[in-house]
Amino acid sequence: MEIGQIETPAAVVDLDVMEANILQMQRYMDEHGIANRPHIKTHKIPEIAHMQVDAGAVGITCQKLGEAEIMARGGIQDIFLPYNIIGESKLERLMGLVQRAAISVTADSEFVVRGLSSVIQRLAEELPVMVEFDSGLNRCGVQSPQEAADLARIIHRLPGLRFAGLMTYPSNENLDPFVRQTKELLQVDGIEVGWVSGGGTQSALQAHTYSEVTEHRPGSYVYGDRYWLEQGVMPLESCALKVISTVVSRPTPERVILDAGSKTLSSDTMGLDGHGLILEHPKAKLYGLNEEHGYVDISSCSRKPEIGERVTVLPNHCCAVTNLFNQVVGLRNDQVEVVWPVAARGAVQ
Amino acid sequence: MEIGQIETPAAVVDLDVMEANILQMQRYMDEHGIANRPHIKTHKIPEIAHMQVDAGAVGITCQKLGEAEIMARGGIQDIFLPYNIIGESKLERLMGLVQRAAISVTADSEFVVRGLSSVIQRLAEELPVMVEFDSGLNRCGVQSPQEAADLARIIHRLPGLRFAGLMTYPSNENLDPFVRQTKELLQVDGIEVGWVSGGGTQSALQAHTYSEVTEHRPGSYVYGDRYWLEQGVMPLESCALKVISTVVSRPTPERVILDAGSKTLSSDTMGLDGHGLILEHPKAKLYGLNEEHGYVDISSCSRKPEIGERVTVLPNHCCAVTNLFNQVVGLRNDQVEVVWPVAARGAVQ
Repeated sequence: MEIGQIETPAAVVDLDVMEANILQMQRYMDEHGIANRPHIKTHKIPEIAHMQVDAGAVGITCQKLGEAEIMARGGIQDIFLPYNIIGESKLERLMGLVQRAAISVTADSEFVVRGLSSVIQRLAEELPVMVEFDSGLNRCGVQSPQEAADLARIIHRLPGLRFAGLMTYPSNENLDPFVRQTKELLQVDGIEVGWVSGGGTQSALQAHTYSEVTEHRPGSYVYGDRYWLEQGVMPLESCALKVISTVVSRPTPERVILDAGSKTLSSDTMGLDGHGLILEHPKAKLYGLNEEHGYVDISSCSRKPEIGERVTVLPNHCCAVTNLFNQVVGLRNDQVEVVWPVAARGAVQ
Repeated sequence: MEIGQIETPAAVVDLDVMEANILQMQRYMDEHGIANRPHIKTHKIPEIAHMQVDAGAVGITCQKLGEAEIMARGGIQDIFLPYNIIGESKLERLMGLVQRAAISVTADSEFVVRGLSSVIQRLAEELPVMVEFDSGLNRCGVQSPQEAADLARIIHRLPGLRFAGLMTYPSNENLDPFVRQTKELLQVDGIEVGWVSGGGTQSALQAHTYSEVTEHRPGSYVYGDRYWLEQGVMPLESCALKVISTVVSRPTPERVILDAGSKTLSSDTMGLDGHGLILEHPKAKLYGLNEEHGYVDISSCSRKPEIGERVTVLPNHCCAVTNLFNQVVGLRNDQVEVVWPVAARGAVQ
């Protein structure tokens, strides 16, 4: 089947472009001796995770336990969960996961590490636990090297756990000073910070400039999107994921309506003006979304899109888009090569 | 299982509240002699559609063909598709659907109705086609009564189709004048406008004030959300859908992080400040979302939420939330009574 026969709206991926993205990132990380641990929240597809591992990634990153379970069942052997895992049933599920794959986690509070220890101490193997620190995003993470060191010491003492290192998102200029100060504080106890994990696609190809980093967790580089295009991080030729859509209405000479709305493009604007770039009509403005309708101002278009015409939308945020689709279509030279279920979509628990 | 044992984040529905919403809407429509045709985009669950039909709805409304196919397979007999259906494969699917249930559609252009006629004329039964008109939303729909009448005449003439009436979203003060003028224009041809379908939860309980309306399509009334609460359309006691979430981090005295982010609450703000109302901490402000993290400012809370504490979030937009979950949990008196797969989630084609 060729691209023109795929029903719309559809999430399609150019396989050549995606494979090049995977190889480019891996080559960069290899050159700089940084472990590559891609974040699969972007694609949620075990087959793509395998492509990343086969290219040389040390393992993958999953945000949620449910994603990790699906990836482990899909044969991925090494999974890092940079998320505080809380509650009896989740801890029991973590126990199950630890017995199927090499699992590591993060924590940013004593509450979390005590929970981890309470169940994991039943196992023979120790669970590697990273301390998450806040590099300025003001999300999760301990706030100071002192807090990081204090939590590392607690992890070090607790049965079943092994303090593995430090983790943050995103990598930025605060990373190195924070890690160095924490290392100094821990040196007196003989506790080593062996593993330092940074993250983000923005900083991925500058990961080597953070001298303390031993690993990086890039996510959206695999697909790319309008946000990274506008940020100057990825050129249009590297954007692999698109949404194919059909013009379903042209009620006025200035407006067309697409069959892609917020349930396909998501409402994530990422701070950009408009909800996506229509590649065939770059002067068209996708100015509004309802659930199944995209509003397009075509007043600046030299050729006006017609009812029934198919268009290709580069969405603002690739991670949010694939999460809305049951499947992603892989294309090579505009021919369908594979259709992947988005296996870990909705695995939010 | 009781509510406290459900893993988070979870979408839960209070069944007593939802059933009361279904009955209240049906009672109102019955009192005023208006046909009730709920829009299932809000829940996407055939079992809830059956509850709506069993209460007295004449049928349901689906935005997408894929939703209609799932609802027809789930035993729903009468389905209205207020969406322009375009393209060979979609028209073939429509043919299949017409043979399984009573199907009606809308169109707002000659392009669309010619496509419909080209396939439907192969069947013995005529397909009821409504003309969609624009009542001021500036989305789809013909722009004037003259255009509506012209399109109605084309439908009337085309083989396989039966002009059934007029449809708009939302119902508002423009509805009656538009319908009356169109009726006048069509009277000379002896073409009747038998069916006038309005829509929206905002105007649902005022549907009787639009004298031309014969049917209404309410959607989100079944669940309710923070948007309808803030609009004064639904009181908090009528809001049936909530997201249960856990505090996973409290990195500073002023901030907690929830395990519900944009992949559970959606990024639909609906123009409201913040991303949801935390019922246990009404002074907490859910001010930001990442994909799996919700940022909460707790500086105004008299009692500060603790790590591990479970909270109940009334989301801004119920339709976007259920579309992100694989299942919705039905509760009665805080006990799990049923777990429904969100069967038509992701059925965007």
